Amino acid sequence: MTQKTNLSAGRGYLAIPGPSVIPDAVLQAMHRAAPNIYAGELPDMMPGIVTDLRRVARTKHDVVIYIGNGHAAWEAALANVIGEGDRVLVPATGSFGRGWGDMAAGLGALVETLDFGKSSAMDMARIGEALKADTAHTIKAILAVHVDTSSSVRNDIAALRTVMDEAAHPALLMVDCIASLGCDVFEMDDWGVDVMVTACQKGLMVPPGMSFVFFNEKAAEVRRHMPRVSCYWDWTPRAAPELFYQYWNGTAPTHHVYGLRAALDMIHAEGMEAVWRRHDVLAHAIWAACHAWGSAGSLAFNVADPDSRSRAVTSLRLQSPNATALRDWTENQLGLTLGIGLGMAAPGDPAWHGFFRLGHMGHVNGHMIMGMLGGIDAGLKALDISHGKGALEAASEVIATGQVSPDTSP
Amino acid sequence: MTQKTNLSAGRGYLAIPGPSVIPDAVLQAMHRAAPNIYAGELPDMMPGIVTDLRRVARTKHDVVIYIGNGHAAWEAALANVIGEGDRVLVPATGSFGRGWGDMAAGLGALVETLDFGKSSAMDMARIGEALKADTAHTIKAILAVHVDTSSSVRNDIAALRTVMDEAAHPALLMVDCIASLGCDVFEMDDWGVDVMVTACQKGLMVPPGMSFVFFNEKAAEVRRHMPRVSCYWDWTPRAAPELFYQYWNGTAPTHHVYGLRAALDMIHAEGMEAVWRRHDVLAHAIWAACHAWGSAGSLAFNVADPDSRSRAVTSLRLQSPNATALRDWTENQLGLTLGIGLGMAAPGDPAWHGFFRLGHMGHVNGHMIMGMLGGIDAGLKALDISHGKGALEAASEVIATGQVSPDTSP
Amino acid sequence: MTQKTNLSAGRGYLAIPGPSVIPDAVLQAMHRAAPNIYAGELPDMMPGIVTDLRRVARTKHDVVIYIGNGHAAWEAALANVIGEGDRVLVPATGSFGRGWGDMAAGLGALVETLDFGKSSAMDMARIGEALKADTAHTIKAILAVHVDTSSSVRNDIAALRTVMDEAAHPALLMVDCIASLGCDVFEMDDWGVDVMVTACQKGLMVPPGMSFVFFNEKAAEVRRHMPRVSCYWDWTPRAAPELFYQYWNGTAPTHHVYGLRAALDMIHAEGMEAVWRRHDVLAHAIWAACHAWGSAGSLAFNVADPDSRSRAVTSLRLQSPNATALRDWTENQLGLTLGIGLGMAAPGDPAWHGFFRLGHMGHVNGHMIMGMLGGIDAGLKALDISHGKGALEAASEVIATGQVSPDTSP
Amino acid sequence: MTQKTNLSAGRGYLAIPGPSVIPDAVLQAMHRAAPNIYAGELPDMMPGIVTDLRRVARTKHDVVIYIGNGHAAWEAALANVIGEGDRVLVPATGSFGRGWGDMAAGLGALVETLDFGKSSAMDMARIGEALKADTAHTIKAILAVHVDTSSSVRNDIAALRTVMDEAAHPALLMVDCIASLGCDVFEMDDWGVDVMVTACQKGLMVPPGMSFVFFNEKAAEVRRHMPRVSCYWDWTPRAAPELFYQYWNGTAPTHHVYGLRAALDMIHAEGMEAVWRRHDVLAHAIWAACHAWGSAGSLAFNVADPDSRSRAVTSLRLQSPNATALRDWTENQLGLTLGIGLGMAAPGDPAWHGFFRLGHMGHVNGHMIMGMLGGIDAGLKALDISHGKGALEAASEVIATGQVSPDTSP
Repeated sequence: MTQKTNLSAGRGYLAIPGPSVIPDAVLQAMHRAAPNIYAGELPDMMPGIVTDLRRVARTKHDVVIYIGNGHAAWEAALANVIGEGDRVLVPATGSFGRGWGDMAAGLGALVETLDFGKSSAMDMARIGEALKADTAHTIKAILAVHVDTSSSVRNDIAALRTVMDEAAHPALLMVDCIASLGCDVFEMDDWGVDVMVTACQKGLMVPPGMSFVFFNEKAAEVRRHMPRVSCYWDWTPRAAPELFYQYWNGTAPTHHVYGLRAALDMIHAEGMEAVWRRHDVLAHAIWAACHAWGSAGSLAFNVADPDSRSRAVTSLRLQSPNATALRDWTENQLGLTLGIGLGMAAPGDPAWHGFFRLGHMGHVNGHMIMGMLGGIDAGLKALDISHGKGALEAASEVIATGQVSPDTSP
Repeated sequence: MTQKTNLSAGRGYLAIPGPSVIPDAVLQAMHRAAPNIYAGELPDMMPGIVTDLRRVARTKHDVVIYIGNGHAAWEAALANVIGEGDRVLVPATGSFGRGWGDMAAGLGALVETLDFGKSSAMDMARIGEALKADTAHTIKAILAVHVDTSSSVRNDIAALRTVMDEAAHPALLMVDCIASLGCDVFEMDDWGVDVMVTACQKGLMVPPGMSFVFFNEKAAEVRRHMPRVSCYWDWTPRAAPELFYQYWNGTAPTHHVYGLRAALDMIHAEGMEAVWRRHDVLAHAIWAACHAWGSAGSLAFNVADPDSRSRAVTSLRLQSPNATALRDWTENQLGLTLGIGLGMAAPGDPAWHGFFRLGHMGHVNGHMIMGMLGGIDAGLKALDISHGKGALEAASEVIATGQVSPDTSP
Repeated sequence: MTQKTNLSAGRGYLAIPGPSVIPDAVLQAMHRAAPNIYAGELPDMMPGIVTDLRRVARTKHDVVIYIGNGHAAWEAALANVIGEGDRVLVPATGSFGRGWGDMAAGLGALVETLDFGKSSAMDMARIGEALKADTAHTIKAILAVHVDTSSSVRNDIAALRTVMDEAAHPALLMVDCIASLGCDVFEMDDWGVDVMVTACQKGLMVPPGMSFVFFNEKAAEVRRHMPRVSCYWDWTPRAAPELFYQYWNGTAPTHHVYGLRAALDMIHAEGMEAVWRRHDVLAHAIWAACHAWGSAGSLAFNVADPDSRSRAVTSLRLQSPNATALRDWTENQLGLTLGIGLGMAAPGDPAWHGFFRLGHMGHVNGHMIMGMLGGIDAGLKALDISHGKGALEAASEVIATGQVSPDTSP
Repeated sequence: MTQKTNLSAGRGYLAIPGPSVIPDAVLQAMHRAAPNIYAGELPDMMPGIVTDLRRVARTKHDVVIYIGNGHAAWEAALANVIGEGDRVLVPATGSFGRGWGDMAAGLGALVETLDFGKSSAMDMARIGEALKADTAHTIKAILAVHVDTSSSVRNDIAALRTVMDEAAHPALLMVDCIASLGCDVFEMDDWGVDVMVTACQKGLMVPPGMSFVFFNEKAAEVRRHMPRVSCYWDWTPRAAPELFYQYWNGTAPTHHVYGLRAALDMIHAEGMEAVWRRHDVLAHAIWAACHAWGSAGSLAFNVADPDSRSRAVTSLRLQSPNATALRDWTENQLGLTLGIGLGMAAPGDPAWHGFFRLGHMGHVNGHMIMGMLGGIDAGLKALDISHGKGALEAASEVIATGQVSPDTSP
């Protein structure tokens, strides 16, 4: 019995950067009969959900929920403060930054993009210059992505606020935390974020279908001066509903509400700081392995600077077509699905097969990450892709110590 | 042991007019690990879903899906064809008709409402007059509700098309089938409907969170002449996606897609005509009971004319505060939740307690309807609300024969 | 659209006398990853389960759990106290009484059956005579069925104890409460029951797979004098386990334990007396309907005397082949499955089609019972089976008042 | 943020030697309303289940199913062929071998144990001697454990049959495959096994609650000569039922039947040989890691000889109290639950903390095993337990190549 065999029959592991692994408790909470939407448990749980969402975003300000995905939240946030002819600045560090800008253009905004490539964080100096140049303060908002899911670049939002303050620029700071919330440290109020958008299917561990817009009083004031906001996107009644249906502008996404309640319970039982630390250690374990593999082979981080990497997603390069070959092998042979590269090359381009991504957001723990890395290590060996040794032990060392000091960083 | 006791410990029955009872098969299909959104089963099932949605709507034209509720579909449909300053005609027969008009106003449209009250179907003659008066053809669309969930009025959409044709008016015929689709007979193409909106949580038997816009070539042409449609609402790429994410403008509502697949399987296994006949017979059973109760007491149909009643929802009147008392009793004593009255009186108004509604849409069968009616009969007795006798046998007679001939209609 | 149609597409309703309708909370509790069987939540919940089982049986004595069905509990109980050559008395009032006797014979016991037919309760006088005749006290146990699921006869166990006491007979009183526990009033200690067997799939609302043997000190003493009890059936270590696996003689039925925990939570949240009252009222509603149907047609109670009827199951007669035709019709046309007759006629015998049974045990409430009765009423009409009128209103009257005074009894 | 943190919040992984990880498809199949037990889908699926069970056991002979655990199957099998005073030979290689012997003693059998310790397979020569010494052929059966879950010793059943044949001894060869079936290669008919017992919660991937007895015609003939077999254990009607309830001697374990159906579908879709190869490669990956760890530290295989190791479970030694410390660490820190040592030392004995076991049976694949090993590697580091390096890469090498040639064996 030395015959080659398939080793995939077991639990599937979807290690893409979202949708992330859904906890059993969330699926359980969603497996229920239709609830009454006029009275009882469902409406009664909303105030607590609002409070607990604020705790995740670290804000005392408002939050509204849209039935929708991240793109819905993008448009919803914009629709409340950006109108035809308004000017927005988009410091892009990946596909999703540019995507939000496109959404603004779709609403008639004048979009100015500062492109920082796909492998580096925003250059705050350049942003500062752009702001200072806007002496007339015609830039109404900056659309910044905290973590760009495509590139895995993490931007320093606190530094962005500092730059804006230094330029004494009144633009709204609007931040996309779709990939990062609940994984990378984020402090809405402390960092001076005016509007933040996110969605439920990554760090919040709920099946896709809900997205969120947080906004502070400064943003609310801008909203009040908008000539018109469409009924569905208008955040005003959603933020201060008198009746349950106003949270949703219509029928509530009943089962998602229960799922979200379960997920928030898990997050706050663990504690926000503990959740962040967990993601931090696990990301460092992944990086330690990648560093080792990359020390003697073609595997490389898309983001060379560890300070600009996300704790939710890691974008990697691997000599085309090896990235695709590796993804195919781990999925077919081991039941482990890795993420495709996104936005680094066009789908038809041979270079497309030289990128892949690891999702490590939400419901992930030590043995899962070691299993993901072990699967990749096996794949590199199986496909004879040259790589450095010691990757798994480097990762298990980080897991063992829980230390994320500089020397464990690649 | 002659003591009074509570009889609610058993399966709950949510008999409100949506969200409706969810089939086990749908909940099962949604209880699953997160699927890959880039390749495999999930993307592969979309063409079949589109086909099967068309079969429900009886159309060969396009359909797009929004993550959202019915209000989202309202706005989405409008956003593609109605812009600032466009004129729309709203023949209202209940709250939801007026609500759709409000949504259009929120987009800057000029809304002209023809109010037909809350208990009667549209008067086609009046609509014909309005159309004929619009010699300049400035009315761009008619927003018509097939069944208004609040009033349970069912309008004759085929007749509306006839009136429009007779007036040779080029306005788009836009129809809201949120409450009716999959319950009341609806023929999009045969009836000449240009745009139809609906949602998943009623006749389609899926938890709320998805809504649908169907549109024909005439509507698509109007869309092409719109100066701008926001990226999220734009139906163009959604209707002809090259990549899976374009169906959704972003991340798919993964679990809802599986739920919808299961629901469509059930519907088409039974057959559209069979589904309609089932709803027809069950509605007649309900009406037979209501007719009997009403023959000697205060219970009355909101819609006196059987020809204008929906097969999905029945709105009833019962001397205030008896309607509320009855709902409370059946829920607390029997585990049967009936629908509140909607839009007939303001929540604070004592008259509010004089209305209630029965949902009979989607996953309902003979014993469920008899159980609902039996529960109401018990409640009327328990609360000493005067009512005519023989209601349950009148209903069981309809169930037994499956006859919906005039003599079984009240 | 006057065409005949099928009305079954909706929630199925299994109204057979066990397995009974399973609550969502129980299914939810069983939908979980495999738990650790050596430490943690699962072992920790056992003492509470034992306590709560005792509360259902109204006893302070021991209870052991077998992975098995009711027959397993029959054999388990017998194996601990009855050996080869021991004499047992079986007062039979249906198939299951005789079945337990057969089980004893299979263990080598000498079984003496007093047959009271299939439609009447035990005649205590005859039992008293038999006991008094046994002056040598060679009868080691009486095997009595509280409610025989086949006949729906309910026997007066307290009276049986009185007869035994009056005869000063030392035999063990062993009672089968498989059909009755959690539905009909049962007081193990107050009624002087020595051994009681039951199972999880009826009043306890858990999928079949667990059964229970309760025993008092008198029975334990008999056990101690048994020459040998097989390891698996031996209740001694199971009743006083030092380690978790000893509760089960091996691996625990992990998911059933969670299901049972959920079911016991529901029962005790409602309260034992409230559970009994609910079953009492619902049974009276059923009887009121049956009485009305039977007043002008062939439908008849198998047990004429209301004092000898169970609150868990009702066995009925209906001119063959109408009983089978009715069952087929309600299942195929309405999604309502009624119970077959059991033990009244052989399966091949045409008379077999003249019996059916209604299960009304466990997770049943007012609207469910009205739905079941409404379905039967429709079936009688559809099949043109002659029957008295007013059945459903008679039932709703009982539901409305919650009165079970003699005048509502048939 | 260099603070120590907990990394357990993610999917739990129960890596004990049974109950094993339950596939989602099995849990889904069990999450259903109570089915009818008299007709329809449930009874109809039994013939296929019997066929598919036979395919797992590689037999054309009979199989019966008991609602119960492995101990139930032990007693059930014995009860059909072993009676009071019968002599059985128990070649023990761990706790479960001795346990089955105790079960036989509980039925009155005369049990003769050949103890081969806890770390070595049976010595066939000694068994041969014992058989040859029994010239009167009073040994009625040999009770052999294929894989002893406690020690992880795997015995060569084909060799045992050869020894019996060489001794021309007519005893029944009864084999316990509870831990091994569906993991280690087993060929009931080819190996001349007369009776085989197993259970559902290991290689068959169903929650505990069902066990199985397979028997051939030789065993059936022995059964026919038994003076009496209790009704519940009697395999005769269960193997040739005329009615559905006879498969179960009473009520079927409805939900387990559906779960088993789903599990058998998975097994046969993969293919028996493929399932065995998968377990073989995964076991070799585990062994490669253990071998590396043990090369420089106290970790050691309980079974030194690879030819005597199971592909379902691996029992290990680690200087007390390190085994317990390691188990605690991986569970608390990573969400990975390893198996306790069983039967190697008494629970109170300090030596007890020097053993642990890894379950790798059933629903396990490449990334899961790498995650389990990665978790152990981290634990060894975290607890400063001395161990050899290179374990994870040794394992990933086996996973990569799928080779189980001698050089990859430790």
